[in-house]
Amino acid sequence: MLPPQLSGIAYGGDYSPEQWPVEVQEADIALMLEAGVTLVTVGIHTWALMEPAEGTYDFDWLDEIIDRLHAAGIQVDLATPSVAPPAWFSYAYPSALPVTRSGQRLGYGARQSICPSSPDYRRAAAALVERLGARYAGHPAVVLWHVYNEYGAPQSECYCDTSRAAFHTWLRARYGTLGALNQAWGTSFWGQQYGAWEHIDVPREGPTAVNPAQRLDFARFTNDELLACYRNERDILHRLDPGTPVTTNFAGTINGKATDLWTWAPELDVVANDNYLTAERADNHIELAMSADLARGVAGGGPWLLMEHSTGAVNWQPRNIAKLPGQMRRNSLAHVAHGSDSVLFFQWRASLFGAEKFHSAMLPHAGTDSAIWREVVRLGTDLRGLAEVAGSLVRTRVAVIWSWPSWWALELDWRPSADLSYRRQLDLYYEALWREHVTVDFVAPGADLSQYSLVVAAHTYLLSAEEAGNLAEFAASGGHLLVSYFSGIADEHDALHPGGYPGALREVLGIGVEEFHPLRAGETIMLTGGHTGQVWSEPVRSAGAEPYWTYLDGPDAGHPAVTRHAYGDGVAWYVSTELTVAGLRELLADVLAGAGITRPGFPDTVELVRRHAPECSYLFIINHGEEAVTVPVDGVDLLDGTRREKEIKVAGGATAVVREPA
Amino acid sequence: MLPPQLSGIAYGGDYSPEQWPVEVQEADIALMLEAGVTLVTVGIHTWALMEPAEGTYDFDWLDEIIDRLHAAGIQVDLATPSVAPPAWFSYAYPSALPVTRSGQRLGYGARQSICPSSPDYRRAAAALVERLGARYAGHPAVVLWHVYNEYGAPQSECYCDTSRAAFHTWLRARYGTLGALNQAWGTSFWGQQYGAWEHIDVPREGPTAVNPAQRLDFARFTNDELLACYRNERDILHRLDPGTPVTTNFAGTINGKATDLWTWAPELDVVANDNYLTAERADNHIELAMSADLARGVAGGGPWLLMEHSTGAVNWQPRNIAKLPGQMRRNSLAHVAHGSDSVLFFQWRASLFGAEKFHSAMLPHAGTDSAIWREVVRLGTDLRGLAEVAGSLVRTRVAVIWSWPSWWALELDWRPSADLSYRRQLDLYYEALWREHVTVDFVAPGADLSQYSLVVAAHTYLLSAEEAGNLAEFAASGGHLLVSYFSGIADEHDALHPGGYPGALREVLGIGVEEFHPLRAGETIMLTGGHTGQVWSEPVRSAGAEPYWTYLDGPDAGHPAVTRHAYGDGVAWYVSTELTVAGLRELLADVLAGAGITRPGFPDTVELVRRHAPECSYLFIINHGEEAVTVPVDGVDLLDGTRREKEIKVAGGATAVVREPA
Amino acid sequence: MLPPQLSGIAYGGDYSPEQWPVEVQEADIALMLEAGVTLVTVGIHTWALMEPAEGTYDFDWLDEIIDRLHAAGIQVDLATPSVAPPAWFSYAYPSALPVTRSGQRLGYGARQSICPSSPDYRRAAAALVERLGARYAGHPAVVLWHVYNEYGAPQSECYCDTSRAAFHTWLRARYGTLGALNQAWGTSFWGQQYGAWEHIDVPREGPTAVNPAQRLDFARFTNDELLACYRNERDILHRLDPGTPVTTNFAGTINGKATDLWTWAPELDVVANDNYLTAERADNHIELAMSADLARGVAGGGPWLLMEHSTGAVNWQPRNIAKLPGQMRRNSLAHVAHGSDSVLFFQWRASLFGAEKFHSAMLPHAGTDSAIWREVVRLGTDLRGLAEVAGSLVRTRVAVIWSWPSWWALELDWRPSADLSYRRQLDLYYEALWREHVTVDFVAPGADLSQYSLVVAAHTYLLSAEEAGNLAEFAASGGHLLVSYFSGIADEHDALHPGGYPGALREVLGIGVEEFHPLRAGETIMLTGGHTGQVWSEPVRSAGAEPYWTYLDGPDAGHPAVTRHAYGDGVAWYVSTELTVAGLRELLADVLAGAGITRPGFPDTVELVRRHAPECSYLFIINHGEEAVTVPVDGVDLLDGTRREKEIKVAGGATAVVREPA
Repeated sequence: MLPPQLSGIAYGGDYSPEQWPVEVQEADIALMLEAGVTLVTVGIHTWALMEPAEGTYDFDWLDEIIDRLHAAGIQVDLATPSVAPPAWFSYAYPSALPVTRSGQRLGYGARQSICPSSPDYRRAAAALVERLGARYAGHPAVVLWHVYNEYGAPQSECYCDTSRAAFHTWLRARYGTLGALNQAWGTSFWGQQYGAWEHIDVPREGPTAVNPAQRLDFARFTNDELLACYRNERDILHRLDPGTPVTTNFAGTINGKATDLWTWAPELDVVANDNYLTAERADNHIELAMSADLARGVAGGGPWLLMEHSTGAVNWQPRNIAKLPGQMRRNSLAHVAHGSDSVLFFQWRASLFGAEKFHSAMLPHAGTDSAIWREVVRLGTDLRGLAEVAGSLVRTRVAVIWSWPSWWALELDWRPSADLSYRRQLDLYYEALWREHVTVDFVAPGADLSQYSLVVAAHTYLLSAEEAGNLAEFAASGGHLLVSYFSGIADEHDALHPGGYPGALREVLGIGVEEFHPLRAGETIMLTGGHTGQVWSEPVRSAGAEPYWTYLDGPDAGHPAVTRHAYGDGVAWYVSTELTVAGLRELLADVLAGAGITRPGFPDTVELVRRHAPECSYLFIINHGEEAVTVPVDGVDLLDGTRREKEIKVAGGATAVVREPA
Repeated sequence: MLPPQLSGIAYGGDYSPEQWPVEVQEADIALMLEAGVTLVTVGIHTWALMEPAEGTYDFDWLDEIIDRLHAAGIQVDLATPSVAPPAWFSYAYPSALPVTRSGQRLGYGARQSICPSSPDYRRAAAALVERLGARYAGHPAVVLWHVYNEYGAPQSECYCDTSRAAFHTWLRARYGTLGALNQAWGTSFWGQQYGAWEHIDVPREGPTAVNPAQRLDFARFTNDELLACYRNERDILHRLDPGTPVTTNFAGTINGKATDLWTWAPELDVVANDNYLTAERADNHIELAMSADLARGVAGGGPWLLMEHSTGAVNWQPRNIAKLPGQMRRNSLAHVAHGSDSVLFFQWRASLFGAEKFHSAMLPHAGTDSAIWREVVRLGTDLRGLAEVAGSLVRTRVAVIWSWPSWWALELDWRPSADLSYRRQLDLYYEALWREHVTVDFVAPGADLSQYSLVVAAHTYLLSAEEAGNLAEFAASGGHLLVSYFSGIADEHDALHPGGYPGALREVLGIGVEEFHPLRAGETIMLTGGHTGQVWSEPVRSAGAEPYWTYLDGPDAGHPAVTRHAYGDGVAWYVSTELTVAGLRELLADVLAGAGITRPGFPDTVELVRRHAPECSYLFIINHGEEAVTVPVDGVDLLDGTRREKEIKVAGGATAVVREPA
Repeated sequence: MLPPQLSGIAYGGDYSPEQWPVEVQEADIALMLEAGVTLVTVGIHTWALMEPAEGTYDFDWLDEIIDRLHAAGIQVDLATPSVAPPAWFSYAYPSALPVTRSGQRLGYGARQSICPSSPDYRRAAAALVERLGARYAGHPAVVLWHVYNEYGAPQSECYCDTSRAAFHTWLRARYGTLGALNQAWGTSFWGQQYGAWEHIDVPREGPTAVNPAQRLDFARFTNDELLACYRNERDILHRLDPGTPVTTNFAGTINGKATDLWTWAPELDVVANDNYLTAERADNHIELAMSADLARGVAGGGPWLLMEHSTGAVNWQPRNIAKLPGQMRRNSLAHVAHGSDSVLFFQWRASLFGAEKFHSAMLPHAGTDSAIWREVVRLGTDLRGLAEVAGSLVRTRVAVIWSWPSWWALELDWRPSADLSYRRQLDLYYEALWREHVTVDFVAPGADLSQYSLVVAAHTYLLSAEEAGNLAEFAASGGHLLVSYFSGIADEHDALHPGGYPGALREVLGIGVEEFHPLRAGETIMLTGGHTGQVWSEPVRSAGAEPYWTYLDGPDAGHPAVTRHAYGDGVAWYVSTELTVAGLRELLADVLAGAGITRPGFPDTVELVRRHAPECSYLFIINHGEEAVTVPVDGVDLLDGTRREKEIKVAGGATAVVREPA
């Protein structure tokens, strides 16, 4: 549920008037109106202002700015400042500072220096949110509550004694008995049977690899503790201001390893995502689309809010490459294409001091006589033209499994190859689909798959028996399933499914594998059809599947490398090595055709995404290439108001949004 | 002394029935018998089962499995479980958890998280071993006691306060007076003269390099503390069960930097070695031979036990490359060739959980319908055919010095070049000798060398005056001595032998060196004869030696690079740079010829090793290459029972073991 | 003020008789006389000898060696031993051991394991210096006091609780009020407003980047604490021995990031520098010259002392490449050329033990029958021939800004590019000037620039408004100013100068920059004239400046890359990318010509530096190349006594020092 007061595509960003003399506020608001800003986020880092000493509160300054924004017709996303406790808090409660896995107690001076299990922290945050919520409940400017900022990024796990005790509580709730825990953790390995809850340690660094089931549960515990911090504040706001939705902004759905967003989804009124590109990646618009699609997935397919992105460079990457002219506009419209009903930035006005002073903003250090400001003003106009798009929905018949437990478990110590990377594999499959112009939904392994024709499971290392059954049932019912190597290997406790690989998916895939054959660093192997594989090879034996591509060399020469298995009414494909994007696209040509999904024949630099409203649909054509592209359409380009009856030519770097009849 | 009950080549591995439902035991034993298993190791990680709470013991489960094995005729190597204290122990005695050099207290959750100096640990381990020893002393199935598992791998040094106090005790015993310690440690450098024992710190990290003599002694102390842990248990077992030998398995002789095995040798009834290959090294069979030869050296030339190796991949390397078909068999037979009277694996049945679930086993996850299982069964048959080999001895006239103190000292801070590596240098000389089909013994620098014609001292950086005298006496008595650069530099306290380099060996080598000339990263220099050097160069001046090869460029152009010195009745060679394997082999051609050692003219992919019995000998021909090789023999190939009167042709990848008359 | 008793160029080095039996002293002194040694440093690491237990003193051994040296006519630089507190001290005062930024308390066993804020340390050092000063005040052999050894190398910052309290004291003194501190640190960013001094933490590691202004001030605090340690001892020595100057030796001016030597300069009677070359850098004589020029700058242009360098290899670099024949002599004479009135070495006699036993010395392990010893003796003769050079001065019209605060701030977290490096940029500009045979002075940003025609400001990231005004005034008054990118960006609190880049220098440079464009790793871009840039690009807009070179590609194609701005009576140049040395030299050709500075046309392997005396000057011609070079001169070569009326031919590797009329 997006805030009902929002109309059209919300435009704006984080606003930190506290960094400037009060007289700057007037200029800010005038410039916001010039740019078409409709929504700003206020308050994220202002705990020390709201509560300058423990129990002493001051909201006058906040009243003033919110009233001023309201007077100008700009809506407010009001943040609880719990991401940055004041210095007095960390001084008074040093045990609320987090401890790293190597036992280092972190200091104050950045932000997020918080043990998420600290009762002192939760109590202090709740006390403040009580006052904040009471004061601004029902304020006409405040359309959304914004809790914290980017849970788990970077601070997630804490290994302090408080966390240890909280871990015991969590484990008791999860397992009930020590017997169940010993069974789940496989403590008979290396003789770690526990005879008392208090004997269990947080999985701090040991002389060698620590029990992987323990570490996996600690990742779950950490996620749950962060989520508990969120609920701690949300529940207060719901009670005090039931009419106003509550959100928290994710630190980039696809980058947030610490937070299993499938467990957050039911707790959020509104899904909000921050998106920062890998600046040195040339085609980082693909990564952008992936993050947006996962945000939409977490939002259950409905619209979501792009809470932060950047007009130009960020400040925290090794080389903070700026955006090229036009790139910020394409990025912004791409988020809308993938389902965002907002374009918000960190930040409104560039800071002159602090850790992020080299981060770009809507209003740069150079002021309004600047290319960035001119692009910001133009974008405000563009978004007003897209107001009717708000609320429309993206639909697709292709889903990709996203599994945080797989990510956690696959990257623990002592896997078959150091080259295994959950994100790299997901990026690979996503990129191949993106270049084939296939819009995808991301779904959890246990999700209802009935609306999809094709489901992709890449590096879905961890699958419970139920989840594996869900995938098999999908195929049996006529779906097309595409599975990569090292999927279906372990159960929810990182214990292997017995009987050979890939245990949980052997039957649906119609194959068996006796042994993994990770390749040497940099090694590549040849497959039929001129394809190459890297990282991994397997002596795939058919148990019903037919070979599609075969290994020509390497440790498994002669074995199938890619197989296809007719299963029930559907088909299950298996890819036992890491293909190139080009190889994967060639495979997808057959897989997609089999699933009855057509691939439009456009260059792979053009992005095509459609949002559906009851009466019409909106086709976003985003040309990331340099050459113009012509696309058949019949509708009105909302960005320039022109009607295109047959086709539209979109210049290199340009974007069109065409309203077509439903 | 091997266990007298062993007959033939023992076959089997680590057996962990505690990881499986009890009903699996029956299937296990049936399969063991199918594979020809004769010996299994039981109990390594079962402290928490044997003593589920402090002072509460339970051995019923162990009785059951040992009796069951005994009934099946399978012998037992019974392990004390001291490598993995239970959770209750670490909870009750947190000061027994080890502290790293950077001051980090490690946690529970892996194994070996133990301060070796902890009196709590030693007492708890002794208490358990008392019960275990008393219970199974004289049990007919138990043919060997197995203490701990892989001392020092990875946990060796501990820098806690307990260790500090133990270090003081150790230092008092070693030096008697502070004056002697100050002299030995050279504390007049940087003003570190100690006026009280308690002022001495463990050599934790400081702002810069810590006193090297202190660090060297701390390495000795750590070795001695680990050895004391071993003796703590062994003495109990000797007392309770005097008829059964005691061993501990080394974590790969050539990989165990922490344990000076020359000091362990006299304390062991049986030498047992674990061997895991560097999976990404293509010719890792050379590394295998080296580890086996060093195990035989520690065993004083007598037979030893291969306690663990792998059927396929391990789980803890960056890329756990599996073994190719046939490789496991060649590896196994190579160990026997080099003196092992067993072929044992970690592990019998592959685990489904825990940190090592991706480690291979005799019985893989895929079960008996698998290539590995078929190879395991075949190997059982092979080994029955080799039963008579047991007890025979490898003999050679070539020895290579192996010196843990040199290893320790050479790799401390602030050596002339970061490219100095003890293992790399030893590997280089070993590989050249291996490729020349020269079987070598490894010996300590002070060993009796009278049986050898050639002794190689590579990177023997640390030599006491007595040890240097031993080498000189060897040459004077007619031996041929081959010395690499950076040998004979320091004495037992890492103080330099005075008067120019290589201080302790100048006279025997007939040379002098004023200054070391380490080379730049990647730099190579030319020598006469088309050879190249790297890492190092020296302005060698002759003091009696004759130049053999000369530097053509680099900082010492015109100086001798390799010299030969007639000394007494023998010859001393000096190599002042790091040669390639090819260069070293060309040098060895002359060195070996001079020492009267013939080199058989076979391809360098074929391994030839002979074991000698009183009446006959056994020639192992292991063909690691792809081409067949023909070797003149007159005897019976024990693996196929065929008599070969003139020669035997061994196919690529195959192995023959030919019994010939003595 | 150099010690008045010094005459000529002092020759000698660190002397540690405490490492040897007392009978070696006689041999040492005889050899010193043979080598021409005139000055040795005694006592650096002898606290444990001087004060073997707290409050118990023993100076008899020191009396003996000083008297012995005096009898031989060798002068003494007497060191306080405060760099290496005894073991009893660290045992009694463990809180005086330093704590790293990650919270690790370092141990005893190296040297400098000291918290510089420790009152225990300062008190103990003072107590000892009281005795030492009282005993040797006025001793005729002692011509110089030498405090500590290389402040800040490596131990500088300490994050312990003592340091935290000292930081509070320092901050109160700097800011007076918390309001001023909150303003200076920009604590409104991330909500870090402080309400009490004691809430402020030392900037230990946090979950992410810590407030940069806080870290910058902590660097200043650390510098001031080290300086306070120096003053603690110096004040005692001044009081007790007012006639003898006091110094401390810098750990390489250009390598000492922790110590802002512009703040040390007024506190020193004599500037002393240690110089160790980057051994693997082929042209490290350029780095040597840079270090020497900065030492001269700190000495206010007057003579200084080379307190340590090496005859050959050092021991602490990755590969301790030895010096080639003749290199030590050229190095030594180059220091004199750049203003040193001494050639001193670490160390007189090579140690046989301890952490630095592989460090070269005047008397090597091999003894006097060695190339090094022969070079040492020859150099003694050379230096006697240069006696009259002592006291003469280097003069130049070119200055380069050196700014420790810029170094500190530029290399904090989260700058626009990880490729930014203060030293690399300074090295680049220095090398280009050196190869053009331009001798430079290093000056502080606020220095009086009136004597210079050209001032170079490279990566002068941090400039206060006053300092920026100083540079602008220099140009306005007719000076030529050459500024690199990322200069003039931030003020003294690391807050950005507002209004676009480079804020503090926009006006004088006549340009404006809206956004930084750091380049990708390894990326290069083309400029007009065939030049290339790397690391950085900028969309430079002219505001009066004229383009000199222009970007041909990259993100700013078409924009000026290098500009020239006529400003007042002078000119300001701006370089917006990182040029190559060759490119910079081509630019310098025009810049120098414009500034009226002629470039002699010699190969760039020849170094030419002139020292000026009232009646004559001394031209040092140091040929670092292999080819002979001919230089027009009219004077006497002091090294061989020959008169050269027209020119002098200096052979490859050789040096000449020609006295010419003023």
